[in-house]
Amino acid sequence: MNKLSVAQRAYIAGFLDGDGSIYVQLKKNKTYRYRYQVAPYIVFFQAKKERLGLENLQRLTGVGYLRDRNDGIVEYIIGDVTSLLALLTEVTPYLYLKKRQAVLMLEIIKFKKGARSGADFLKLCLLIDQFQQLNYSKRRINITSAVHDVLHAEGLLTP
Amino acid sequence: MNKLSVAQRAYIAGFLDGDGSIYVQLKKNKTYRYRYQVAPYIVFFQAKKERLGLENLQRLTGVGYLRDRNDGIVEYIIGDVTSLLALLTEVTPYLYLKKRQAVLMLEIIKFKKGARSGADFLKLCLLIDQFQQLNYSKRRINITSAVHDVLHAEGLLTP
Repeated sequence: MNKLSVAQRAYIAGFLDGDGSIYVQLKKNKTYRYRYQVAPYIVFFQAKKERLGLENLQRLTGVGYLRDRNDGIVEYIIGDVTSLLALLTEVTPYLYLKKRQAVLMLEIIKFKKGARSGADFLKLCLLIDQFQQLNYSKRRINITSAVHDVLHAEGLLTP
Repeated sequence: MNKLSVAQRAYIAGFLDGDGSIYVQLKKNKTYRYRYQVAPYIVFFQAKKERLGLENLQRLTGVGYLRDRNDGIVEYIIGDVTSLLALLTEVTPYLYLKKRQAVLMLEIIKFKKGARSGADFLKLCLLIDQFQQLNYSKRRINITSAVHDVLHAEGLLTP
């Protein structure tokens, strides 16, 4: 990732607080060791006519890519773990509204690297559950219990 | 307005580029000398559950006010000229996407203070027309010609 000035880091933080989204998806995928892929994302959204604003962000950071959706919305997506770690490390101190999500995503990314067992993976799911609660305070989601059932059925929880 | 650090100014600029709106309304109003009120605004929008982000902006700047709409959207509105001048002076250098709107609004506010005749007011309308073109590139609006007709009919264009 590019080196950023304080003003650039704070600008990106403001944009992210105003318009962006920080989230972690858990996608079912049999080719993964624990049957689920942990997919963290930072995404910015703009109407097509404001595409320049996202191009500018992408040029500032040097990471991620733009995607033109069919509905007139453009997304600027950062989904690889190395870029996310670098960007969050720079931007988190300047965030306000989404600071807790940023801190928790950093924790999830670091924990994920060290996960060595099904039990570790369940702990990771607990963190992702916390994350969902930050983003959708009214929805009740319990990822951990669903993952537990899958890992248990496939004998991935016994040491 | 509060004194702001570089990081705070850049943060607000990022938020404004991502989520805010800079615009000038021309409202018909017979109590005004030139029959129209020039009303400049900076507005930030968030869903109700993100209200904290707007409260934070308002606390940072110390100007403007929050308004809860009926449709679940909260607005943070800055509409008085003194606050707008102060805020734009601080934030404009850090804007990217909405920099031209900010520069033009500063010009409009300053020009408005010096307007002394119907002809001056029409020049102000030309600037507002430019502004509308920046915000809605596809819509054709010609405020100046409408105002010209009103001022002419009321004898406000003769020196």
